[in-house]
Parts: sequence; structure tokens; C-alpha cells
Amino acid sequence: MSVAMNDLGIVRRNIIRADKAAVDHLSRYGVATIHEAMGRAGLMHPYMRPIYTGARMCGTAITVLLQPGDNWMLHVAAEQVQPGDVVVAACTVANTDGFFGDLLATSFRARGAKGLIIDGGVRDVTDLTEMQFPVFSRAISARGTVKATLGSVNIAVVCAGATVNPGDVVVADMDGVVVVPAGIAQQAADAAEAREANEADKREKLAAGVLGLDMYKMREPLAKAGLKYID
Amino acid sequence: MSVAMNDLGIVRRNIIRADKAAVDHLSRYGVATIHEAMGRAGLMHPYMRPIYTGARMCGTAITVLLQPGDNWMLHVAAEQVQPGDVVVAACTVANTDGFFGDLLATSFRARGAKGLIIDGGVRDVTDLTEMQFPVFSRAISARGTVKATLGSVNIAVVCAGATVNPGDVVVADMDGVVVVPAGIAQQAADAAEAREANEADKREKLAAGVLGLDMYKMREPLAKAGLKYID
Amino acid sequence: MSVAMNDLGIVRRNIIRADKAAVDHLSRYGVATIHEAMGRAGLMHPYMRPIYTGARMCGTAITVLLQPGDNWMLHVAAEQVQPGDVVVAACTVANTDGFFGDLLATSFRARGAKGLIIDGGVRDVTDLTEMQFPVFSRAISARGTVKATLGSVNIAVVCAGATVNPGDVVVADMDGVVVVPAGIAQQAADAAEAREANEADKREKLAAGVLGLDMYKMREPLAKAGLKYID
Amino acid sequence: MSVAMNDLGIVRRNIIRADKAAVDHLSRYGVATIHEAMGRAGLMHPYMRPIYTGARMCGTAITVLLQPGDNWMLHVAAEQVQPGDVVVAACTVANTDGFFGDLLATSFRARGAKGLIIDGGVRDVTDLTEMQFPVFSRAISARGTVKATLGSVNIAVVCAGATVNPGDVVVADMDGVVVVPAGIAQQAADAAEAREANEADKREKLAAGVLGLDMYKMREPLAKAGLKYID
Amino acid sequence: MSVAMNDLGIVRRNIIRADKAAVDHLSRYGVATIHEAMGRAGLMHPYMRPIYTGARMCGTAITVLLQPGDNWMLHVAAEQVQPGDVVVAACTVANTDGFFGDLLATSFRARGAKGLIIDGGVRDVTDLTEMQFPVFSRAISARGTVKATLGSVNIAVVCAGATVNPGDVVVADMDGVVVVPAGIAQQAADAAEAREANEADKREKLAAGVLGLDMYKMREPLAKAGLKYID
Amino acid sequence: MSVAMNDLGIVRRNIIRADKAAVDHLSRYGVATIHEAMGRAGLMHPYMRPIYTGARMCGTAITVLLQPGDNWMLHVAAEQVQPGDVVVAACTVANTDGFFGDLLATSFRARGAKGLIIDGGVRDVTDLTEMQFPVFSRAISARGTVKATLGSVNIAVVCAGATVNPGDVVVADMDGVVVVPAGIAQQAADAAEAREANEADKREKLAAGVLGLDMYKMREPLAKAGLKYID
Repeated sequence: MSVAMNDLGIVRRNIIRADKAAVDHLSRYGVATIHEAMGRAGLMHPYMRPIYTGARMCGTAITVLLQPGDNWMLHVAAEQVQPGDVVVAACTVANTDGFFGDLLATSFRARGAKGLIIDGGVRDVTDLTEMQFPVFSRAISARGTVKATLGSVNIAVVCAGATVNPGDVVVADMDGVVVVPAGIAQQAADAAEAREANEADKREKLAAGVLGLDMYKMREPLAKAGLKYID
Repeated sequence: MSVAMNDLGIVRRNIIRADKAAVDHLSRYGVATIHEAMGRAGLMHPYMRPIYTGARMCGTAITVLLQPGDNWMLHVAAEQVQPGDVVVAACTVANTDGFFGDLLATSFRARGAKGLIIDGGVRDVTDLTEMQFPVFSRAISARGTVKATLGSVNIAVVCAGATVNPGDVVVADMDGVVVVPAGIAQQAADAAEAREANEADKREKLAAGVLGLDMYKMREPLAKAGLKYID
Repeated sequence: MSVAMNDLGIVRRNIIRADKAAVDHLSRYGVATIHEAMGRAGLMHPYMRPIYTGARMCGTAITVLLQPGDNWMLHVAAEQVQPGDVVVAACTVANTDGFFGDLLATSFRARGAKGLIIDGGVRDVTDLTEMQFPVFSRAISARGTVKATLGSVNIAVVCAGATVNPGDVVVADMDGVVVVPAGIAQQAADAAEAREANEADKREKLAAGVLGLDMYKMREPLAKAGLKYID
Repeated sequence: MSVAMNDLGIVRRNIIRADKAAVDHLSRYGVATIHEAMGRAGLMHPYMRPIYTGARMCGTAITVLLQPGDNWMLHVAAEQVQPGDVVVAACTVANTDGFFGDLLATSFRARGAKGLIIDGGVRDVTDLTEMQFPVFSRAISARGTVKATLGSVNIAVVCAGATVNPGDVVVADMDGVVVVPAGIAQQAADAAEAREANEADKREKLAAGVLGLDMYKMREPLAKAGLKYID
Repeated sequence: MSVAMNDLGIVRRNIIRADKAAVDHLSRYGVATIHEAMGRAGLMHPYMRPIYTGARMCGTAITVLLQPGDNWMLHVAAEQVQPGDVVVAACTVANTDGFFGDLLATSFRARGAKGLIIDGGVRDVTDLTEMQFPVFSRAISARGTVKATLGSVNIAVVCAGATVNPGDVVVADMDGVVVVPAGIAQQAADAAEAREANEADKREKLAAGVLGLDMYKMREPLAKAGLKYID
Repeated sequence: MSVAMNDLGIVRRNIIRADKAAVDHLSRYGVATIHEAMGRAGLMHPYMRPIYTGARMCGTAITVLLQPGDNWMLHVAAEQVQPGDVVVAACTVANTDGFFGDLLATSFRARGAKGLIIDGGVRDVTDLTEMQFPVFSRAISARGTVKATLGSVNIAVVCAGATVNPGDVVVADMDGVVVVPAGIAQQAADAAEAREANEADKREKLAAGVLGLDMYKMREPLAKAGLKYID
């Protein structure tokens, strides 16, 4: 009965991935832009950092729920990976063990995975950097893990504060990690595109010395809020 | 369009609360017992602590999503409270400001609220202790907040690492906070009851000096796992 | 020359304390009220916690700058204490050592000190609790300190994020610690009084079931900000 | 071969406990006094806090090395407990799970244990408080643990930054936790006694208004270090 | 009246910047050297880190006080920037939101700013790195901010534990961030120069194998302090 | 007497270093491999990070116990360094001051040191990077230290959670820091070699698309543990 209540010990094989065109479209935008385009939603906590400068990825989520100090479910997840997927691993408690290294990366890559997002630790980071296998993690740690206790694969997880459902789009770059629910992937990509077009023009004006105060028409609301200039 | 994507600026008025009998049943068990009965699920992070010794509550969730340093939505939430509810407030980012004090507690109590769970700060804790209004929070802080930016009420939130849907049962005691999805509230209560019955017998044996090694029949699996005794 | 630049190795003997009537007036209000009355200013970080439930104090600051693991300057400060003072000790770096215990408390009390605010650790907390000598600190730690390196007494310090000048009023209660610059102590006390009078009326209305939404006239600004109710 | 190198999977049955008279002698002094008497050594990190006000203990260490999220070894340890022992549990990584609750406390007490020091989480703290079973821990958490991976019992462990060997004396009170190596227990107790005698006299003088500056003859070394008084 | 008490909602337009020659002089030395030359003063907390390797800056401070999750005041600050300035942004509470990105950097640079020091988060770090616009921050985060609540510009702020007045010199390099009060900028630069000259000679001796024990004549004070050599 | 109890104020001159051939052998393997080969032991906490990308070292430990904010003992340690040594510095409390910079690095290198492991802060990191002098530390900080209080050299220390005895082998790379007791250095090197040979073969299979599930024969134990596949 526990299983029914806690979703532990489950592997869901058939998941609905976000539309491939929408994923491709989203892959053209940065994390900050997509997060803004969605109305400031979907971000993971900022402690999630890339293991090397320039790491980035965009793909559909295979979700994993890990037990602390136990990477058994990452091996189970490998079988569910399809080309274009990103593995997103949450843990039942805060844990920084080195759940993932170059062997699992080799396996994930062979299955077509684009990278790993893990609310835990990774190791072999020199090898992973040479492989250019992008990983965003809570920590880097050499500490090994066991294979003793069940978690789950492809259930809804909370990873670094963000809810991730299997098949959602996950985008990561040097600014962090954002999750786009599969159902709004195309809409979010369109909004990101609109936002970015908009930014080029603003950048040009600001570079020419126009102040944001004027460009965004902030002077009146600032005065209304009570801002006082003192000489 | 942002609103559609990010659930900000929304108040859901009609929510389905967990069955009252199930809530009453759950109120008889502790957080650890319920968490175990659900197969070790539903716990918030352990940084959520009661503001006074002995604080405890059990009720149905009114959920709130706050912006940092802004408690506007707690006022909006008050109107949605019905007797037996617990207000569960998440924040879009880690923030320890004093979102809640004795005035809001007075209002919540007048509406029938049983307490507050907030992933943020509270103040007036001496008054709240005198009122015996239970609050579990991330921090205690006198810092005041503004009323300037919209969040939402009665959407799914992630509070201190746990997913909470409006109407879910929330139970809190000195061990922490656990969330029971409304749909399995009765099942969880039954499992908790079974577990507790079970525990009384174990406690008696252990008090009489029986070892857990024998009572749980651990000696064989320990030996199989390789445990060595050295004299 | 360093001394001139860094204010180390200095004890200022003649400081201007806030007006006694203003200090007495401020002692009647809580930290949250005073902080709000000053326009949300002057708070220390919320990691500053009392060593026992119910600890509170209000007095004029004798400031101390400590070196990590060195409590020499607390002995120097004792001589500068006058009845009604509060010792406020900052440290050049984050440090949790037990700088202060029951012997220093005995000495401080004999000089008339009302308590201690220390961005560091304290020990002998059972004795301090029996003495009812209030201390707000970053940590409790038995670790001893040396007397080897100079700091200063009665210079401007940054303690737990707040600037404190000698003679300022320091108020602490279960909600935290707030600093009131000596020059505005009376003004702050008047504002706190006004605010508190105001609160009694609000509390009564809220207890009677009036919603903050109506009492504070929030419905219109919320609607303007785009809040949507969904049934 | 791993076992030989890492001390995992081992239970040492015959340990040499510190001399009982020395333990009794040490039990009369506080943690800060003993730590100072040993020349400022042996303290655990200050994040180790008691689960209830007034908790204290003094006994000989049964040491445990736990795996994260796994309390199997606490059951193994119970069998090794003799009257007057304190169980000291370290974990291979930082972990806050609820390894220990009222059932294990019942078992430990039945064996004669005086309390638990654990660099991890505990639960059932209301029950433990009623039982007055003292626990000092890194966290309070309801999260349950499994019984799947071996650690060890009665090996040297590093618990909250302090090295603990089986049989060492462990003293805990509201100021923290200190470890006294078995071999110097009597010497440490004598030094603590000398120190405390010494303190009574100092306390009296300070209460009478004598300054530490004079009592400890600090004025000359302070002047030599360059302290300047400014009027 | 609040405004008078809390310095919120104020923009000071005429500030006195440190002497340009002194700033240029200071720009030749590292943060550690300047901090030592000032007698070990002026450092921000070490959590302030550069967003790219090699980032460094030296300029006069435009100070900003931000509200959490709100970057309105950075737009206000842009207008006050003059060539050679560094923007120093504090926040009323600990907050890691992405207050600053490539658009504001474009605007700041167009005004002549040399970089940003912010006790909060930044985003667009790949763009900022390409622009070689140096930023030292508490965090990197894509999370967007609003423009709803007033802070201030060019008031005294406490940023990452250091007091900064408008016009002070701020120097940042891979070792951290140091603040030099405008009034002692020349004196500090001279002291830094003297210190550095001094260091070249020491480096040569140490490289040749001379021990610091001998070069600094430490053997006698060490023996006096009681150091014992054991063979 | 204190000295006898706490090991402060001691420099041990004659230490037994691990066998040179074993050290050379260990230097060929990574931290994760050695940690696994020892049965998952010996790791320091993951907050110990290299000051530049690619830093690595392998050598025999000269251990140092520092007092907070005091680097006197690093100068004492320099004299004990022999070619091939690594200095391992612990601190009596958590402290991030800049204990070490380019001058000490010049001295250490002149004595033949291979690098520094320090549970504290370092500075001059740009210079250290140019020198390619590897340092793994808890923090980077420009804050200067004094030379006032004794610690010790070549006693057993707990550094970042790991016990280090003088003469032990310390290996550090981008994955962290591992300590190999001198007495098992050759055994650990052999085990690491065996493990690594083993890995090449696994890597090849995984790259060819074989699943870990099959290669490690996990399907049966997973099924036994209750894993359910859902379509």
C-alpha cells in the first residue's frame, strides 16, 4: 500500500514528451529569457551550478527520485532515456554524495541523453568536462554511493525547488536551470522569441546612452512612490 | 499570457478539501507516524520549526504563493479560510522577512484557521505564543513587508520542498510538517493507526530488554551483509 | 598609521548616550513596532537569537569590535559600562567561539549593564539563564577564547548587518534586535507609540471578523494589479 | 580487503571504558569548564544542540558510524551498550534524517544508556522529552530511515568535528558536547575541579565591582599591545 | 517622517568622490595588499565572488539600497553614474534574485561605470563575461525582479558586511572586495605601495630558501609562547 | 599540563612518511578511484575546492593545527617540509580568513612542498594560479591574520571532517581530497589499480550501448526489492 501512497519503487515507461519542434525552438533562448517569458516561473534554486564553464543543455525530462547515498535508480533511468532527453534527478533529502560519474555519463550519452540535472553530487568532473557532458548539480563530491534502496523513475519530482514532470522541457545554461511544462512549451518558446526581439532594440538604445528611467518611463511612477532627489 | 503560464495573480475560490472524518482521524497521529505510514513521503524540510514548544496542528490547506518581502497575498488568503483550514505559504525565493504577526493571526483565527505553515519569517512571536496560535516557519524576523506584487492563493505550491495542493491535509508537530494528499487522507490515517497499534507492543518488548536485533530478526541479514564481530 | 585607518586599538571613553527619557519610552515597545515606526530600518540579521525564552532588553550601546577567538576587548569594555548600557559586540569575521560566560556577565551586571548583543558565541547559558542576564547571539558554544590581539571599544561597528554607534539605543526581544540612532530616539519612540495605539483598534476589528482586505481597502489596488478570482 | 582499509562492517565488542571514578568526577563539571581544563580541546561543532532545555549527560562512548538515511547500526549498537554508556553516532556524510526515535530510546534506556549524541537527525522529540532521554543532534526530522547498508560500531569516529574513540568520556550540557579521551579522564577531572574552585573566588570579586582589567592584570599587556584611550 | 528616519526613497545627486589620483594609485594594488595597508580593515564577506576568472575593478562608489526581488533602484542609480564609478548595491535582506543583467550592464557601461558589486544575484553571466563587464556578487540567478518598492541611491549602506559611503573607493579582484573611505584613499595607496615594495624583497629571500621563522625573527617569540619541539 | 591534554604548542620533527613508491603509485589515480578502492573512506567534506581549474596534488602530509585568524603555525610548518610533502592545515574552529598567500607559497615551494590543503581561507589566488601552486581550501579571502597564539605541527588533526596523521598520503583533484593512512598506502594503490583496469572494460561496454542494468546484473535484485514497471 505504501507504494500507492508514495510513488516509490515505480518506473513509468510510457511518458509524453514535449513536442520536438517546441523543444528545438526553446533551445535557442537562454534560461533568464524563458523564465521571464513564462511570467517568472519554473526556476530551480541558484545552488544548482554547472560543473564546467559554458555548460548548457535543452531537452525533455526523464525524472528520477533518488535515496540519499544510493544511485541505483540512475541505472534504472538509463534504460528509459531516448535521444534528446535530459535526466533530472531529485533526492528524498539534501545529499551531496557523488551519485554520477564518467561511467554513467558514457551510458547516458550512448542512449542519447543531452545531460544531467541532479540535486546531489557528481564526480569525475575532469572526465565529464573532457567529454563535454553537461551536468548541473548541487555539489561536486568523490563520495561513492550504494545500490540498496528503491526510488522511482518518471514520476513527478521536486528538484531544487522546482516541480518537474516527465516529458517537461528542461533548459540549463550559466544562469541556472528552468523547467517548462510540456503543455506550454510552444507558447513559452513564442513568448521567449518575442521577448528577445524586444531586447535587441532596448540594448541599442541603452548603449547609446538613453537611460532606462526614460526608456521604461519610470520617472512618473518613481515620483508617485515618493522618490526624493537631494542635491 | 504570463498568467496562464505561471499561475501568478490567481485566487481559486472553490477548492475540494479532504474529507473531514479523515482529517479528524489523522489528527490523532504524529508527523513521524503519518510520514512512515505513507511509505516515507510528504515531509517538508527540517528547517521548518515551531515558534513555541508544543505547537501542533492538523487541517486542510489554503495555499499561498508569496513574493519576497511582500505579504499582500496573506490578506487575500484570509478571506478563503474556513474553519479547520491551515494556511500554507510558500515564497518564490528563499526569504526570511516577517510576513506574519499577531494582527494577521487574529484575523486568521477569527476565520477559523488552525495555524500557519510558512517558508519565510514571522514576528510577534511572544504574542503568538500567548494566543497559542501555532506557526511553523523558516525563521523568526521582525522585518516588515510591503503590499506591492501579486502572488496567488490556492494553487499548487512547493513549500519547504514539499508539494502542497489546496485541500490537502497538513499535519505539524515538534518533529516537523507532513502533507497528506486529499485523495489518500483516509488511507493514510488507517495506515497510521495500524502502525501505531503495532508500536505499543514493540515498545513494551524493548523496555523489557529485548533487542531490536532479535525483535526485528536482523542478525541474519546483518551477517549476510558481511558484519563482523571482533573481540 | 594603521590605527588611524582602521580604528583598531582604540577605546573611546566619552560617548554621547541617547536621551534617557527616550530610552525609557522606547523600552515600552517591541522590536517589530520600533522597526516599523522607523520606516523599516535598523534590524540585525535574524540569526541573532536570545539564549532563553523571554529574554529582552533596551539600553544604550557600548560597542566592541572583537577579533576571532579573542575576548580581550570585552574586559576592556566592562570598564566603560554605565548603568543602563547594553554591550554590543561585533567581530572582524564570522566566528562562533564562546566569547562570553557567567564571569563576564557577573562583571557586566555589577557595572549596571542590561545585557549583551554579540555577533559571536556565548557559553554558560544555564548560568546566564538563572541570572536572567539577557544575551542575543549568533551561536552558543563552549569554545574558549584567548586574550592576545587588540580590537576596539566605542567605535562605529557593523553587528549582524546593522550599523551601531556608541550611545545608540538597542532594543531586543523574541523577534530580534533593532538599533535606534541616538539622534532620533525620541522621534522613533513617538512613532512607535502612535503605531501601537493604532494597532489596538485594528486588532479588535480583525477579531470581530472584519477582513484586512476591507479594513486596509486592498480590493481596488489588488484588482488594478490584475488579481483574478476563479471559481 | 576494503573492510581492512575502511573499518566498515565491524563491531568491536570488547572496549576499554574510562575509569568509572573519573567519569563520576567529570560528571560534576560543565562542558565549558572541562574543555578549558583540557587546554581548550575536545569540543564538537556548535550545531550540536539538545532536543530539550536542560538536557545533559556524562558517560562512556559506544561509537557508531552510520550511512546516510540508514539506522541499522543503531540497532547493532544497542547490544553493546552497558549501564553508564552514551551512544555517539557519526555519519559518513552530512545527513539530517530521523535516525532515532522513542522506540530506540526505550531500548537504549533498557540497556542502561545515559543518552545519545548524533551528527544527524532525531524524531519523536515530544516523547523523548517526556522520557527525559537526553539527545544532542544536528537536526530534528521526522524523516524515516532504512536498514540496508553496513556501518560500524566501536571504531574511532569523527562526530561533529571531534574524534571519539570507544570508551572515551562524553559530557554534554546546554553549552555543547565535549569528548575526554579515556586515558586522561582523571587528569581532566582534577583540572576541571581546580578551575572551578578558582572561579568561585573570581565571581565574588567581579560581583563586588572589581574589574577583570585589574583582577587579571591586563592593563599593562594591553598598553604594551598599543591600546589607546581617547577622551 | 519615516523617510527622515530610514533613508528610504532618497537619491543624493551631489556626492564627493575620492581624489582621482588616489583612485588611480590604488588601482595598482591588489585587494589583500590594500586591506593589509589599511590595518586589516574594509573587507566585504568572502561570499562575494567574481562572475568570471580575472574580473577586477577599482573606482568610486555609487551606492544603492535595494529591496528584495526589486531592481528599480539600479535604474535610478544609472543616471548618477559618472565615468570611473563602481555601483555598489546592498539589499535590505539577504536575497539572491537576478537584479542585474546584460541590459543594465550596457546602460552602466554607456555611463562610464567600471563594474558592479552587488550583495544579491546577477544573470546573463555569459553575456557579461563576453562584455568583460566585471561583477562581484553573492549569487548567480536567472530569477527576475519587479519594480515596485523604493530603496535609495547614494546613502551609506552596509554591503556584505562592509560600510560603504558614496564616493568611497572600491577595489575588487579574485581575492574579494575592499572599501577604502574617500578621506584616506591617498594615505591607503601610499601604505599599499610601501607594503608591496617590501614584499618583493621578502619573496626573493623565501624563494632562496630562507625561512619565515628567521626572516621575521619568530623563533624567540614562539619559544616564549611555549612552543615545544619533540623528536 | 594542558599541553599534555590538548596537543597545543607542539612541533613533532620526526615523522614517518608513507613509502615513496606507494605515494608515486597512488599519484596515478584519481580521488574518486582511491576513495572507492579503500572501501569508501578517507574523504574530506565537499566544501574543500581547488583555487584553480585543474589543480591536483599527491604527497605526504605535514599537518598543522591553526587558531582562527592566526597563521603563525604555517611559518613553523615550513621548516618541517621536505620535498614531496603536502601541508594539511586544520583550524580549531570554522574560519575563512586568508591564512596563506604567495609569500608562504614561495617559501613552501622552496622547501619542496607539492601544495596546500587548508580548512580555512587563502588569498593571492591570481599569483598562486600563475605559480601553479595547488591549494584546496574552504574559502578565498583577502582577510589578513595575526601571529599571536600557538597551534601545533605534525599532530593528528581533523581537517574538513577527515582524520589526517602526519606522513599520511593526501591526494587531491577536481573531485575533492582523500586521505590514505600511511600504513595502507601500498594496499590502497594496488586496489586503485585493480579498480581502474576494471573500469576501462566497463566504459567500453557502456559506450556500445550495454545497460548497467544488464552489465551489473541488477534486474533481479531490483525486482526482488519490489520495483514495478508501469506502461
